[in-house]
Amino acid sequence: MKKASIISVGNELLAGLTVNTNVGYLSRKLLSMGIPTSSCYTVGDRIDSIVQILSQAAQQADIIIITGGLGPTDDDLTRQALARFMQVELEFSEELLAQISEFFSKRGLKMSANNKVQAYIPAGAEAIVNNVGTAPGIMAERDGKIFVCLPGVPAEMKQMFAESVAGKLKQVGGGQVVLTRKLNCFGTGESVIAEKLGDLMRRDRNPLINCTVSGGVITLYIVATAENKDVAEEMVEKDLHLLREILGDLAYGADEQTLAEVVGAKLRSHRKSLAVAESCTGGLIGKLLTDVPGSSEYFTCGWVTYSNEAKVSELGVDRILIDKCGAVSEEVARAMAEGARVRAEADFAIGVTGIAGPGGGTDEKPVGLVYIAVAGAGRLDVEHHIFSHSRGHIRYRTALAALNMLRLRL
Amino acid sequence: MKKASIISVGNELLAGLTVNTNVGYLSRKLLSMGIPTSSCYTVGDRIDSIVQILSQAAQQADIIIITGGLGPTDDDLTRQALARFMQVELEFSEELLAQISEFFSKRGLKMSANNKVQAYIPAGAEAIVNNVGTAPGIMAERDGKIFVCLPGVPAEMKQMFAESVAGKLKQVGGGQVVLTRKLNCFGTGESVIAEKLGDLMRRDRNPLINCTVSGGVITLYIVATAENKDVAEEMVEKDLHLLREILGDLAYGADEQTLAEVVGAKLRSHRKSLAVAESCTGGLIGKLLTDVPGSSEYFTCGWVTYSNEAKVSELGVDRILIDKCGAVSEEVARAMAEGARVRAEADFAIGVTGIAGPGGGTDEKPVGLVYIAVAGAGRLDVEHHIFSHSRGHIRYRTALAALNMLRLRL
Repeated sequence: MKKASIISVGNELLAGLTVNTNVGYLSRKLLSMGIPTSSCYTVGDRIDSIVQILSQAAQQADIIIITGGLGPTDDDLTRQALARFMQVELEFSEELLAQISEFFSKRGLKMSANNKVQAYIPAGAEAIVNNVGTAPGIMAERDGKIFVCLPGVPAEMKQMFAESVAGKLKQVGGGQVVLTRKLNCFGTGESVIAEKLGDLMRRDRNPLINCTVSGGVITLYIVATAENKDVAEEMVEKDLHLLREILGDLAYGADEQTLAEVVGAKLRSHRKSLAVAESCTGGLIGKLLTDVPGSSEYFTCGWVTYSNEAKVSELGVDRILIDKCGAVSEEVARAMAEGARVRAEADFAIGVTGIAGPGGGTDEKPVGLVYIAVAGAGRLDVEHHIFSHSRGHIRYRTALAALNMLRLRL
Repeated sequence: MKKASIISVGNELLAGLTVNTNVGYLSRKLLSMGIPTSSCYTVGDRIDSIVQILSQAAQQADIIIITGGLGPTDDDLTRQALARFMQVELEFSEELLAQISEFFSKRGLKMSANNKVQAYIPAGAEAIVNNVGTAPGIMAERDGKIFVCLPGVPAEMKQMFAESVAGKLKQVGGGQVVLTRKLNCFGTGESVIAEKLGDLMRRDRNPLINCTVSGGVITLYIVATAENKDVAEEMVEKDLHLLREILGDLAYGADEQTLAEVVGAKLRSHRKSLAVAESCTGGLIGKLLTDVPGSSEYFTCGWVTYSNEAKVSELGVDRILIDKCGAVSEEVARAMAEGARVRAEADFAIGVTGIAGPGGGTDEKPVGLVYIAVAGAGRLDVEHHIFSHSRGHIRYRTALAALNMLRLRL
């Protein structure tokens, strides 16, 4: 199997001023054509560093993609570095210069003298046309390895890769296909999932199963390698089915499906409506629900009753209850959910109250304590959790836990 | 000057399934303490690859930070790789095991047997406490180089770096200081800002001024390099002042300040309260406002009146108005803001209605059309915008535009 290596060039990347999204795009595209990426490097605008990384990447991979450093300024050194690595001269191309000046004249702009350096290319290499910017790309071969240089600007890089590079690399990829699908889980920790999956997570298994965690969502990646797409698809489907069987209710959706989407689909299919009464999440549950296009079909109304007065006046929560049990309590969460359900004439309602922090916690009711109630279908359930870390994290976990609780009820 | 190298471990990064935000965070933090990052590497979950990259990074840099691969599963190999690189054994630590089991028991959870592997650490290395997850970090020294292993989960990594790593590295840094501060702007495009700043954005200037755009927020980075912190701070302060003068109301805050924070600070200092009536943003404005700790001082109540019924019953919007002008109209936005203000007995209120898409647009009222009203202090203003791109982008831009409109009113 051919392997790729991706080199990102640019001081701005090393200074953390720009988030590198090129690597993700390229590695996904390469993988889908059966070329896994074995390593990625980020180097600054220094010719020595670029040359060194080029030779290292060439030792490990068959296809080396370099982004960045093709601009017209002094700190753009990828052209020179590739020529030095290939031990060839940079040659001036009249054709390239014509393309670059056309780019400017088409837009009614004057080409700067700087841009002339972009018409140089390592001897024996091929230029890649750039229709959205001035920097032409470069494709070259040396000792059976393919080198592709693309601009660092994501819009230019993506268009050039799709138009001029992908087609050529597909032929190189040679048969094998790598297909990845995701299974999203919620309601337990990574280690419990790993325990349940046991041997299925073996490193030498095909499909390979990887696991990541973010905001309480555990994502399992099923990566199948096969001689063609049909076989890979069948392998992944089989694993998806198997994992769903093992994980049961812990698995809520595949690929890009969110908890809010799954909840929405269930509400829609049962023709049920939903209202939400939020306190500590401050509108986040409503936001997540309405991220989903078409959510107006089932989501009718939300309240952010941040003050106690609002809980009383808008949701009909008993003031005596708040005084007796506190605004953050099982009783108030229940009353919020039921109040929202009745008030909105909805089939289901969520009520959430908690202490998101950083202030406001006590020994008895610490920061991170949240009560989540779900009302509907003749029931009024309540759960409590103690989430940790930042205000943002506590709020996000609470919102997802509330959606998950409703999902399990539907 | 000491240099750093950052190694990111994880197949999910090489498959392009996760965007690597750790590298940006770490390189910014390191730079701020005078430690530039000279290279970044991404490798898969293979022990040989990790060991190889460790020795390479150790040749180039003085401080090597590794993120990822510290979890409890078989594909977590950073612990083993560091031990192999250091040519020492992994040692079991009772103390670490106690910390890990405490993490679970505190949350009323049972520790899985898998988590025991997280209590192993290379002989002679030091553990870094993780208060937000189960994976302890590792800090070790070898041949005068410092090796720091942190979890790949950004929330855990950041907290551990800030709490336990930054302090130690600051002592190592020494020499030149690079200080970065941000000025956040809203209400115009990048090119207008660049035109206003002119020569100040020259590449050879110190401080260097960089510009990024995200969700309509334009962030200017002021990067000063100087022999010590005082000089760098003075340079940056001077530039911040200068930029604020040039940009006027377009600049709303520095560093991590959000529009919601600035609006909140103004409300607090004027002792005014705020209510919000949202339709297309679905709770996002409330979420952004309540992201700010202490927002309960001025934010009292929010409504997500997603259905027309809710607009009528909860905010007192006239049904005839909705029938006549449509739910997405100047008139309804005004009525929502005023209804929310009266209902919540608040000083100010925001009302938002629009078409977030992808469906629901017409020739007359296209997807992206939004009306934003601000009621309060005897005025009832309304603005309309037509935002483009995705549903998520339209909603986010609308929420920020609403907060910005209120900011300019206060």
